[in-house]
Amino acid sequence: MTVLNDAARALLESPTIVHLTTLDPDGAPQVSAVWVGLDGDDIVSGHMRRTKKVRNVARDSRVALSLQTDVVNAYGLQEYMVVRGTARVEEGGAAALLQRLAHVYIGPDVTFPPPGVEGPGYVIRTTPERVTGVGPWVGPDR
Amino acid sequence: MTVLNDAARALLESPTIVHLTTLDPDGAPQVSAVWVGLDGDDIVSGHMRRTKKVRNVARDSRVALSLQTDVVNAYGLQEYMVVRGTARVEEGGAAALLQRLAHVYIGPDVTFPPPGVEGPGYVIRTTPERVTGVGPWVGPDR
Repeated sequence: MTVLNDAARALLESPTIVHLTTLDPDGAPQVSAVWVGLDGDDIVSGHMRRTKKVRNVARDSRVALSLQTDVVNAYGLQEYMVVRGTARVEEGGAAALLQRLAHVYIGPDVTFPPPGVEGPGYVIRTTPERVTGVGPWVGPDR
Repeated sequence: MTVLNDAARALLESPTIVHLTTLDPDGAPQVSAVWVGLDGDDIVSGHMRRTKKVRNVARDSRVALSLQTDVVNAYGLQEYMVVRGTARVEEGGAAALLQRLAHVYIGPDVTFPPPGVEGPGYVIRTTPERVTGVGPWVGPDR
């Protein structure tokens, strides 16, 4: 069972940048922008290097992903979605995932990662647990 | 002294929605979208009720604010800004601040908060400590 409805899935599969919040060793919030896609009911992002966010997730699985849209609702508020979940780091698979996501985020002709950036890399896989925000992803009444 | 350069200040004064990350009692990241403005070198947001983010800041001052732009850089990456800082809650002043921000975010004719929503409310005041992301706010080389 997933907490993502069709609207949530559509937004996560669109070329909308995702702000990924992880937790630093001291517990402070760390935010960076990532491309994401879906793999079944999980949200996946690819990382060629063992960046801070990869190290953070390996140590503390609690993450939040937030996405901003251009849609303004009837009250004048812009729609957005926040997904909270539990993430884990998988070794390998980053290049293939990034190539797939580059086609979504940049275009059909792009090669990504760029030449010279190699290695198995890491995939951050997040199992969504709760969706909040303003928009059709939080239920029929909002 | 502030860590905000002119580009950072301009983005924070524009009608760009801010994703505010606070920390829940158990340390998990909590994200919601807010309007912000500048008051001197601090970033301020107004809240009519003692919402979860207000309670979170009162307990743990560590926050992150992230903003997405529509600008795509020469590498095909969308520019965004993350500000990490220390926040505190001030009682009162929310209605006047929200009215000022509604003029920025919605338009010159809007009345906000809407009639019936009253009270002194709360202001979350964040002193910026570090700026990251992709764009002119992180320095001349990026």
